[in-house]
Amino acid sequence: MVESFHRGAVAVVDARGRCVHAWGDIERPVYARSAIKPLQALALVETGAADHFELGDAEIALACASHRGETVHTERVRRWLRRLGLSEADLECGVHPPRDPDAAARLLRAGQAPSPVHNNCSGKHAGFLTTAVHLGEPTYGYVCAEHPVQQRVRAILESMSGTALVDAPLGVDGCGIPVVGLSLRASAFAMARLGNPVGLAATRRRAAERIRHAMWAQPHMVAGTNRLCTVLMQALPGRVLLKTGAEGVYTAVLPERELGVALKIDDGAGRAAAVAVAAVLRYLGQLPASALAAWLELPNTNIRGANVGVCRPAATWSITAPMRSA
Amino acid sequence: MVESFHRGAVAVVDARGRCVHAWGDIERPVYARSAIKPLQALALVETGAADHFELGDAEIALACASHRGETVHTERVRRWLRRLGLSEADLECGVHPPRDPDAAARLLRAGQAPSPVHNNCSGKHAGFLTTAVHLGEPTYGYVCAEHPVQQRVRAILESMSGTALVDAPLGVDGCGIPVVGLSLRASAFAMARLGNPVGLAATRRRAAERIRHAMWAQPHMVAGTNRLCTVLMQALPGRVLLKTGAEGVYTAVLPERELGVALKIDDGAGRAAAVAVAAVLRYLGQLPASALAAWLELPNTNIRGANVGVCRPAATWSITAPMRSA
Repeated sequence: MVESFHRGAVAVVDARGRCVHAWGDIERPVYARSAIKPLQALALVETGAADHFELGDAEIALACASHRGETVHTERVRRWLRRLGLSEADLECGVHPPRDPDAAARLLRAGQAPSPVHNNCSGKHAGFLTTAVHLGEPTYGYVCAEHPVQQRVRAILESMSGTALVDAPLGVDGCGIPVVGLSLRASAFAMARLGNPVGLAATRRRAAERIRHAMWAQPHMVAGTNRLCTVLMQALPGRVLLKTGAEGVYTAVLPERELGVALKIDDGAGRAAAVAVAAVLRYLGQLPASALAAWLELPNTNIRGANVGVCRPAATWSITAPMRSA
Repeated sequence: MVESFHRGAVAVVDARGRCVHAWGDIERPVYARSAIKPLQALALVETGAADHFELGDAEIALACASHRGETVHTERVRRWLRRLGLSEADLECGVHPPRDPDAAARLLRAGQAPSPVHNNCSGKHAGFLTTAVHLGEPTYGYVCAEHPVQQRVRAILESMSGTALVDAPLGVDGCGIPVVGLSLRASAFAMARLGNPVGLAATRRRAAERIRHAMWAQPHMVAGTNRLCTVLMQALPGRVLLKTGAEGVYTAVLPERELGVALKIDDGAGRAAAVAVAAVLRYLGQLPASALAAWLELPNTNIRGANVGVCRPAATWSITAPMRSA
């Protein structure tokens, strides 16, 4: 018996903006949330801030990350902030306990409160601060839509997605920065260009290359232990870039085929988004099926540890879905 | 902008089995999960086990509960088990940390591991053990479908819902007991009869009354601090019975109108189920709107504590939904 089911939409777009595959409504605005952190990180590199502060792959991967607050993540962010002459008190992302249950339990047992470095977005925010410091901008208020840091991010999204954002819906992300409603088609196009930046200025091309390189060199920094983004990029560096976001979004890049993928689960469920992105990647046929198999049958383990179900793509999704070709 | 949306189905059925309202497909099988714990608790009362062990309202409410593992819940379950000559080691529900974050943090800070009494179902399982002890049945294995405890629950569901379960889908619940696929229509009917047990045997009528009384007398035991079930039954004892379950299910009873409600959110989201049951109760017009208002606009607070959105019923749901009247 199927207990629960999820619906969603997916856009697969090439680096020239052609929509290659689409399922569902790919034109309605979607908040891509953390799934476009690699695009937001472009500013960190192309302003020269990353080079100025001699950031390595680990820091740039963290700027693209939704990490689990493991020690390897938090210690790196703390060292990075010190290099800027700042501290975690300058992070405006807010505080939540580490998403890694072991890290969260360790903190509680030690009687310590979580700090902003444990926030899954702390690397992205350290990147924002780096750019502000490098360009002599005030650091306070860097999360506000009016701050130059966020204005640069907005301009990058506009240009990479080829979409005028003047009338786009605006919201506030979990970590306080602006989010903008972008169609899945536009997000997929922007990701395709991150993978193959044909026709972009040399500075942006080099920044995109640096970000891809960093995510593939340090995939653990991008998410953490046993996370789909990390595991797939560890297995297939250079072949797939993957980034999840809150409320059921995912983006992917297949640079060999110059494709970008953006998907949204209608109801925001992360379990469905992970299975769906694995199913789309399997459908596209570019990656070894063995690397995807484990994510196409997510076991549902009950409290007693018994395997009582599985989260998987609908048996007929590739046949009955309203697919369109450009 | 609407970021995510949920769909679902709702059945409203009276105590004579007439479907009064329906939205969506109310005939497909649904695992009602913890939303039918008040039905499962009937066996505890009608076998005489509850009286034999002199259970009070608190224990009977706990037998119907998905509690938060607050001290008031766990201490009561521990005392109850001692009264049976058993301990938490006899609970076969498995272990998860208390759902109440304060209780979970206290446990970790004290360096203690969670035990089966912290499982949100520990009261239901204590009820199962009580019946087994009272009837001289083995306690070990009481979660198995073949054990008399589960056979009695199955017979109760069959008779209360007026549905032959011989071909019904079977699964395993989060806490290890069998779950059976029942249509929302059948679950709503069974709940309506719990509220107004017209035509049932005297023993069952008295058991249903005892359970209603206990849930209204001890609503905090049924869920816990700030939970919809608890808050609504505290505000409106005698007027509404409410019970949530995993994967987006809810049941409700409006005894004054002899109505039972059962709903399922397709994708299993708890946030949507809470808003939906409040919206259905508002639609039915039996309860004061003021008691429901807070649950019709669930604020979405981000990590920084800012109010960045709201979870609410679709503006048009009562107009466009495919409603049917019997």
